[in-house]
Amino acid sequence: MIIASIMSEKTKKKPSIYKPKPISGFPEWLPEERLVEQRWFDHIRKVFESYGFCSIETPSVEETDVLLAKGEVDKEIYEIKRIHEEDSSKESRLALHFDQTVPFARYTAQHFNELVFPFKRYQIQRVWRGERPQMGRMREFYQCDIDIINVDNLPLSHDAEVAAVMYEVIAGLGIGPVQMRISNRKILMGLFENIASKSEDIPLIMRALDKIEKVGIEETKKSLREQFNFNDTQVENIIAIASRKFTTVDQIEEHIGKYNNTTDEGFRDLISVMQSLSHLPEGAVVADLSIIRGLDYYTGTVYETQLLDVPEFTGSVCSGGRYDDLAGGFINKHLPGVGISLGFSRLFDVIRQQRPELLKIGPKSPTDILLYTEDSALSSEASKTAQILRQRGINVEVFATVKKWDKHFNYAKKKLIPYIWYVSTNNKHEIKNVETGDQTNANPTTWSK
Amino acid sequence: MIIASIMSEKTKKKPSIYKPKPISGFPEWLPEERLVEQRWFDHIRKVFESYGFCSIETPSVEETDVLLAKGEVDKEIYEIKRIHEEDSSKESRLALHFDQTVPFARYTAQHFNELVFPFKRYQIQRVWRGERPQMGRMREFYQCDIDIINVDNLPLSHDAEVAAVMYEVIAGLGIGPVQMRISNRKILMGLFENIASKSEDIPLIMRALDKIEKVGIEETKKSLREQFNFNDTQVENIIAIASRKFTTVDQIEEHIGKYNNTTDEGFRDLISVMQSLSHLPEGAVVADLSIIRGLDYYTGTVYETQLLDVPEFTGSVCSGGRYDDLAGGFINKHLPGVGISLGFSRLFDVIRQQRPELLKIGPKSPTDILLYTEDSALSSEASKTAQILRQRGINVEVFATVKKWDKHFNYAKKKLIPYIWYVSTNNKHEIKNVETGDQTNANPTTWSK
Repeated sequence: MIIASIMSEKTKKKPSIYKPKPISGFPEWLPEERLVEQRWFDHIRKVFESYGFCSIETPSVEETDVLLAKGEVDKEIYEIKRIHEEDSSKESRLALHFDQTVPFARYTAQHFNELVFPFKRYQIQRVWRGERPQMGRMREFYQCDIDIINVDNLPLSHDAEVAAVMYEVIAGLGIGPVQMRISNRKILMGLFENIASKSEDIPLIMRALDKIEKVGIEETKKSLREQFNFNDTQVENIIAIASRKFTTVDQIEEHIGKYNNTTDEGFRDLISVMQSLSHLPEGAVVADLSIIRGLDYYTGTVYETQLLDVPEFTGSVCSGGRYDDLAGGFINKHLPGVGISLGFSRLFDVIRQQRPELLKIGPKSPTDILLYTEDSALSSEASKTAQILRQRGINVEVFATVKKWDKHFNYAKKKLIPYIWYVSTNNKHEIKNVETGDQTNANPTTWSK
Repeated sequence: MIIASIMSEKTKKKPSIYKPKPISGFPEWLPEERLVEQRWFDHIRKVFESYGFCSIETPSVEETDVLLAKGEVDKEIYEIKRIHEEDSSKESRLALHFDQTVPFARYTAQHFNELVFPFKRYQIQRVWRGERPQMGRMREFYQCDIDIINVDNLPLSHDAEVAAVMYEVIAGLGIGPVQMRISNRKILMGLFENIASKSEDIPLIMRALDKIEKVGIEETKKSLREQFNFNDTQVENIIAIASRKFTTVDQIEEHIGKYNNTTDEGFRDLISVMQSLSHLPEGAVVADLSIIRGLDYYTGTVYETQLLDVPEFTGSVCSGGRYDDLAGGFINKHLPGVGISLGFSRLFDVIRQQRPELLKIGPKSPTDILLYTEDSALSSEASKTAQILRQRGINVEVFATVKKWDKHFNYAKKKLIPYIWYVSTNNKHEIKNVETGDQTNANPTTWSK
């Protein structure tokens, strides 16, 4: 009736059926998929909290000016506006956040005096980007971010910590082996301090190198020659270094002392981070100088992550880095930090579409036991039994008494509910395993799966 | 640096400090408040799932036309729009949902063939309303909804079930005694079938009666006389019946047979629901004919809920009812249902502001143990210890080695972390209770709180 009245107002003619359709870029899942998504979120939260990260949530909106100022993504921002807003100039312009970094910076500055530093927070929220939707690219999606920030300085051990946390998160999702690729931007920045014609070029060169995988190696070489005036030897050198991968710390150490202090500092920091991660399985982490991250604000360690068994997932599952100052424009404090962001919904959706077997989709409900009685006179005994089982942590659904005997059985089968509990006269309790058909006597105060 | 660059672009002059401020109606919590909010959500989810409700989430947006059609709330809807959208006519208009009922109706119709009925779902999401913000009234807030819908007919036992679930939810939040007030709209509707001058008046009379608490009894009497042409005796009769409260089923039974079939059906349904809830504590549920719910689409049982110990919370904590057809305009099926919605954020915020002691706000992080070693040579032993404890379900934060000895202690005290674990040379492990100062030897494989 609700929607019948909606539709009759909408069409202004006789109520007709309005066939609902998905909105492109705004996905939603079926209950059985959502149960897997919840399992993933629970796992992620558990790992984050096991390392002492606390949760925060910020509003879905920020002032548009704050979001817009980041520059690059302005086209993708959604503003919100009340439909019947009469004078828009009276209210400040608000827009849905497109990531969790700007809101986190604003939050930290706003509540600075009430927070305790180092501040370790995680944030699992939806973000919105008005990009053209395509496979794994959505307009509304979840991100899972962790960051650690401190006042004035932040020990390097935290760079290893956030990597270990995210490795544990992804390795625990059951989607095959994962490899975290780590570099330190100081390595290449030091190199370019020596050879770039002017220092303003350095961030531009970094960005050009970051695009190797996208535009190809020849195109990158060309732009290094033409845009930044490097000669052929320099170009070959740059490409060689920016392609280096190291599997042992010794291999990195060989390079120290060959360039300048900035580069050496980068190598030493990278070694320290790799050493702190040596407890992870072999191949879990590699030092890879091709990891650059295009964003200028990263100043040290940078991360990307690859799923080794899921080639359909292109790009990085989660990525991040160390930055010099999180919230400098908001507050007169120096707040260095390090963080990694997991593009949750993109990962979930690619796996869902391309490798559904990895999701291990199961039941359509969280119910452990469907409780049934043929006789409505027993309904009080039935709810008492259900309540005893629930207090013991078992999820129990009471099926309303209906005459057609097989209805509850079909319902349990379709929803993949594992057990049916029968309450009969004379206080007789029996439990049936829906899959095997086995049926035995049971006691609500002692039964367990 | 991120925001420094934002701000310098924004102001187009020297980087200056932009003091962030809250956005009215879009609340956010400190970590220690968020921890309580998470505890509440976890409790609510656990209760919902223990009765077999499955989770769904819908996108934050629906097509504007679908949302607008409901009529009454159009002024409060937020539309979203990409800032650089060139031709808005190309894209369908989208708006943030203002409740979870319309999205749920659309979801059920859209995925009808993939769902199993009766469909029991819960939904915990943010909703948005552009209302003027005031105490406990927000523009962005969480709602927690449960509904059970079925094809063609839905047994009355589910009307009692959703009430029992929500009672258990609120009683378990530790905010004092709660009372659920239940009625059945058929009772008054039957009455007005007998005495209203025309049947179109019936929903209007119901709405007028629903406003008694808001406009006062005299005003309501006046409108009954003037707007609907009832005489004084009729008005007194209506008010008398619409104010009746019953604490026993016998009291209700006395009224059967006095009016017409519709009314009798209402009384019988109400008796059945009350009987199914008789296992709840005394006073948990009362039959109260003044509960009407203004929304026309409720056709039977209706609910409201009061916190008895928190007079600052005006109105109903959670409310809902039975409806004849959820998604009729979307699909050629008859889908009756019953549901209740909990206004989560309003409840949380009123308690937070008016009765903060009830929130039992504690630590600022989920950390159980802060692990510390004075000697950075022991950092590998420290992370090994932390990992052993984490695998045993204990949340452990490793404090980076710093020279100032009392720094980690002050950190633990400020965040209310209960324990500090010391790893020293010769593999010596000790644990300190931060509150009492007691310190003893400990073994990571056996220690427990």
